[in-house]
Amino acid sequence: MAFILPAKTRYSKPSLIREVQERGASIPGFISLAIGNPSADAIPVKALEKAIHDVIEENALRVFEYGPTAGSSELMAITKKRLVEVRHFPAEHQAFVMLNGSGHGLGVAARTLCCEGDEVFFEQFSYPCAILAVRAVGCIPIGIPVDAYGMIPAYLEKAAKRGKGKYIYLNPNFQNPTGKTMPLQRRKDIYAIAQQYDLLIYEDDPYGDIRFHGESVPNFKEIDTDGRVIFAGSYSKTISPGLRVGFLYGDEKYIKPIETIKNVMDGQCPLFNELVIEHTLRSIDYEAHIKHICTLYKKRCEIMLDILRQYGSEHIHVTRPDGGMFVWVTLPPTVNIDAFYEKLFYMGIGAVKSEAFAVDEDNPGCAFRLNYTYAPMNQLQEGTMRFAKATKEICG
Amino acid sequence: MAFILPAKTRYSKPSLIREVQERGASIPGFISLAIGNPSADAIPVKALEKAIHDVIEENALRVFEYGPTAGSSELMAITKKRLVEVRHFPAEHQAFVMLNGSGHGLGVAARTLCCEGDEVFFEQFSYPCAILAVRAVGCIPIGIPVDAYGMIPAYLEKAAKRGKGKYIYLNPNFQNPTGKTMPLQRRKDIYAIAQQYDLLIYEDDPYGDIRFHGESVPNFKEIDTDGRVIFAGSYSKTISPGLRVGFLYGDEKYIKPIETIKNVMDGQCPLFNELVIEHTLRSIDYEAHIKHICTLYKKRCEIMLDILRQYGSEHIHVTRPDGGMFVWVTLPPTVNIDAFYEKLFYMGIGAVKSEAFAVDEDNPGCAFRLNYTYAPMNQLQEGTMRFAKATKEICG
Repeated sequence: MAFILPAKTRYSKPSLIREVQERGASIPGFISLAIGNPSADAIPVKALEKAIHDVIEENALRVFEYGPTAGSSELMAITKKRLVEVRHFPAEHQAFVMLNGSGHGLGVAARTLCCEGDEVFFEQFSYPCAILAVRAVGCIPIGIPVDAYGMIPAYLEKAAKRGKGKYIYLNPNFQNPTGKTMPLQRRKDIYAIAQQYDLLIYEDDPYGDIRFHGESVPNFKEIDTDGRVIFAGSYSKTISPGLRVGFLYGDEKYIKPIETIKNVMDGQCPLFNELVIEHTLRSIDYEAHIKHICTLYKKRCEIMLDILRQYGSEHIHVTRPDGGMFVWVTLPPTVNIDAFYEKLFYMGIGAVKSEAFAVDEDNPGCAFRLNYTYAPMNQLQEGTMRFAKATKEICG
Repeated sequence: MAFILPAKTRYSKPSLIREVQERGASIPGFISLAIGNPSADAIPVKALEKAIHDVIEENALRVFEYGPTAGSSELMAITKKRLVEVRHFPAEHQAFVMLNGSGHGLGVAARTLCCEGDEVFFEQFSYPCAILAVRAVGCIPIGIPVDAYGMIPAYLEKAAKRGKGKYIYLNPNFQNPTGKTMPLQRRKDIYAIAQQYDLLIYEDDPYGDIRFHGESVPNFKEIDTDGRVIFAGSYSKTISPGLRVGFLYGDEKYIKPIETIKNVMDGQCPLFNELVIEHTLRSIDYEAHIKHICTLYKKRCEIMLDILRQYGSEHIHVTRPDGGMFVWVTLPPTVNIDAFYEKLFYMGIGAVKSEAFAVDEDNPGCAFRLNYTYAPMNQLQEGTMRFAKATKEICG
């Protein structure tokens, strides 16, 4: 007799993002545009080094002993000030739970808000860990069809009417993987459906500050009149991914139970890492630093789009993101995506195929996510060129 | 209509450990023996400061960027070497998942191994977060009666026969909260039942190295012939609790799915913190450091036991731990424990009542856990004296 894992935690498939990295590692000259890492130039290394020094100087023992279970009140204060002043979020009756990166929120929210058999609504292509975290608690992720503006309200309503839904997962700004931004009216329409069917909204917004085109659109959290939006924010894209500091911000009535469950199941997060972020925020001009990142990524995004336009097939569709880290390239549906994917490896270029992001495994799509932020500039150009040529050869 | 949290994550009661700290904060001269923190003297502050400096010097960008999802291979290697050489653990087919402190293992194991309605077996008084983590995934923690040697095999077998059990949670060394150590024969008897009923064993051993009396007893992991023991280890009690570095070590067939679920739901843990621990381990004589902690705690434990014996009631029962951080004081069952608890606050002394650790809420017990490692020496003496006098006054 052998111990058998529950079906919800048995995985038959490896991560397709990791697959690109692992297969690519053995190919000479391979260029990966697969992973969604910030540029090394976006990390304020000197300020972080100084912050680490200062935190230790101030009180080393404090950070080596157990810290407060809720996390750093200093970091919460400075974070809240900005969310309220710069992003116009509500301030009353809101609370934080500090996390091991905002990705930690995916699991802790699903665990706290859902039971086995509940449904969670996603755009049909979405962030893989968000989908998998919901599956891992025995819930059912439901992919809602999208148009150019994101999730289509009529389909959401149809799904919500079944009465099994708990929340809607969205990246309204520069969505992962498509790079699309949802317009305000669409946000309002979705919010109204959430109100009618009593759904929460999990607004995952790690890239929200990194806008390099157009006017910012109010977040769901800004228009959240009745406290049903749980906002997930991160310092991974603007300060340092490696220190693992993110947070959830929302109505106390949801955040307090999430915090309790987090502390019981995962323990507290390291105060040290939170204080290093807090000291860094105080020592740099954060708004200027964000502008610097936007300038950097605007240029990188334009290079990618220019090469795709100039050298790519005219039969592909390419999103034009207003910010964030990704471009989404849709191939004609007649293309055999698996053969195309193999061709990319043969040409020494790694990109993530749409299957990795598909909520509905029977509809894997025929598209690729390309990242323009992480590869060194010469690799960004050469890698995009290889991808463009592949589309030209296959799609004409 | 209001969104309703699932019953499994609705908590009606606050933490009784936190309650002591919060109520005590407003009492002048209050002394807490409630929380289970290591002594400040047990933390190698200078070595940690140097390790932080060295990690940054070596390659700051490496730790500020995303790290490997599995954690630091360097820390895994040095940890495995010691587990195999010093603690005689099996080396083949074993794997690590590095965690945000070993407490993180409580949640990630329950989530991966169990479904709603499954049962997990505990000693009748056990670590509160372990019990709550199991409840939070919708499982049922079952308290098994104990004797002087810990969990009684006959009662475990009776519960296992129902066929709903997934694993047994144990701290075999210096148990939290009782301080008891389970003898080898009892461990073997429990292991045999686990084999017969195909249960896993979650061996939570944060204090295992801190033995200051008697001979060490082989861990469950040492006698684990068929790979059913998942060992939870921690650097919180011997290096630094604040950096939050712990791990699970066990058979690949369970650790790999746990790692996958952890990465999907919680994201990766900070590489920086793991490298600081690893550098510290390399720069100090770790075995000598552990001996130093044992000497420190032996003296503190003896002071507590001496005062309880000299000034306490003869009608109380006090455990004599061979290591770890806690003494368990059982009062006669005729004592009104809630009135006694209030008297302790009145006398300015905080201890955790047995109810906090009771798996079966209908059997809250009539005992207190006292910690001897954290309070400054004069407070340890004065606090224990107050507690002893309270027992004398109430129990005669």
